Amino acid sequence: MTGDISFGALPAKAEVIEVCSRDGFQNVKTFIPTDVKISMLDALVGAGFKTIEVTSFVSPKAVPQMADAAEVMTDFKRKRPDIEAVALVPNVKGAEKAFQSGADTLNFVVSASESHNRENTRRTVEESLSELEEVCRLRGDKKGVKIRVSVATAFFCPFEGEISRGAVLKVIDRALSLGCDEIGIADTIGTAHPLKVLDTLKAVRERCPAEEVVLHLHDTYGMALANAMTALFLGYRRFDAAAGGLGGCPFAPGAAGNVATEDMVNFLERLGIKTGLDLTKILSVSHSIPDRLGVSLCGHLAVTRIPS
Amino acid sequence: MTGDISFGALPAKAEVIEVCSRDGFQNVKTFIPTDVKISMLDALVGAGFKTIEVTSFVSPKAVPQMADAAEVMTDFKRKRPDIEAVALVPNVKGAEKAFQSGADTLNFVVSASESHNRENTRRTVEESLSELEEVCRLRGDKKGVKIRVSVATAFFCPFEGEISRGAVLKVIDRALSLGCDEIGIADTIGTAHPLKVLDTLKAVRERCPAEEVVLHLHDTYGMALANAMTALFLGYRRFDAAAGGLGGCPFAPGAAGNVATEDMVNFLERLGIKTGLDLTKILSVSHSIPDRLGVSLCGHLAVTRIPS
Repeated sequence: MTGDISFGALPAKAEVIEVCSRDGFQNVKTFIPTDVKISMLDALVGAGFKTIEVTSFVSPKAVPQMADAAEVMTDFKRKRPDIEAVALVPNVKGAEKAFQSGADTLNFVVSASESHNRENTRRTVEESLSELEEVCRLRGDKKGVKIRVSVATAFFCPFEGEISRGAVLKVIDRALSLGCDEIGIADTIGTAHPLKVLDTLKAVRERCPAEEVVLHLHDTYGMALANAMTALFLGYRRFDAAAGGLGGCPFAPGAAGNVATEDMVNFLERLGIKTGLDLTKILSVSHSIPDRLGVSLCGHLAVTRIPS
Repeated sequence: MTGDISFGALPAKAEVIEVCSRDGFQNVKTFIPTDVKISMLDALVGAGFKTIEVTSFVSPKAVPQMADAAEVMTDFKRKRPDIEAVALVPNVKGAEKAFQSGADTLNFVVSASESHNRENTRRTVEESLSELEEVCRLRGDKKGVKIRVSVATAFFCPFEGEISRGAVLKVIDRALSLGCDEIGIADTIGTAHPLKVLDTLKAVRERCPAEEVVLHLHDTYGMALANAMTALFLGYRRFDAAAGGLGGCPFAPGAAGNVATEDMVNFLERLGIKTGLDLTKILSVSHSIPDRLGVSLCGHLAVTRIPS
């Protein structure tokens, strides 16, 4: 490790992208009624998010929780034309539906790990990248719609262990060569640690500017904020997070727990980094989760009192 | 913030001090039978700790959970003469009992905040420091017994908010002038963030070497490991932690949650920092907590699977 990262380099602002309605809802075992999803999205919008990952267009057979994706997305865009609505898509079929329903950004997910990509999408990494090519073609000159390519299991894989930087860069290079707009880097099982994050992100930084990269961290082992801090020092300032710390990955054992939005916002604001978000409103959504969704909260701040 | 802290400065080794039997047991509402305490301490010793905070000599009226402190400490030292047994003491009376029961180290606690010190010890900070003077006198030339002075609410106080570095240094300077051996710095309510930790610890570093300082972090808001990382970069390498993430402070609202030993050890080892501890054995103690003590686990690793 070179000593070129200093504590003096924190950014003034950061963006937190709410993903509870996608990564969170997708991992609640029962189907959440569409009107509950919509009402929670409405409440989240009220907290000030500029970008929300609204839903995912995945196989309703594999992930029945997301069967109403088109309805949720259409409602969202009808009511909130100004908020960037992201839709996760794993393949061409999902992308077609996302285009139709008015998503602003397609978050196309490919794992750096072959085994995880197979579990997640039933495709090899190469097959997923070919689908991505087709998705980019479908997008054509609809330049209004952005494509983000998210690299899942970018640090560690539940099946293969440590992931090489090369496997991550391979996906990124392909995405960039296809003209994709943004890159996502996901610690799908929460086992990344600051030195691994540093190693991978330094290489990513050589390839695309930090403002085009979104970090997706899980707090499974309590390391999310240490990893976020590492990313912040490297100039990254866009983070996914899920209200109440919901989420995980249905095809990655032990992956429970996106970093909670309230924990991420609290952390950033305490570091003097402005998020433009209303923590009290976020907490009120998080606090409603056990009653509304019948699941426990996973984060920190929501299960304690607001810090004085 | 100056940019003088680099990611290149992580230490090769760190010490984790188990405090579950003190900070953890003290915060379980019911009285834990003495034989359960002793048996859990035996199991913790088996994980390889060189230092354990065994108990606290506090008023049995105020903290009935610790009424058997002398018995627990005497048993511990009889069986484990080679392991450093720490006893928390808030006053002269506690110190006398700790000396009698064979503690190797007295952890004398003084808050940086007047309000918290009053809640915790019913004394002003100055009165506590006078008691410390008397404790140092009592220790006399028993140089075998160490005195650590731990500064509670060293960053934020639940009653007074942000604590000035000066208030922390005042306690430390007095402790050092009295010939105390070690300093503890406690984030009693878990609201410290990396920049605050950096600011305070840089000043502490001017006064005493890192090897004489123990960091006591709470994970109430998920920031413990980010704070630990900050301390590691500053050269600090001794950390309190409690199996299962038990603990808190009975006199600090919202303080629940020492950083879990398993989370801290996992974090350090993943960073390549050796702890000499057996994570599987620690986890087996943590996993026994809900059944044995009737309380929920607070940490991360213990409520998920061991990372691959």
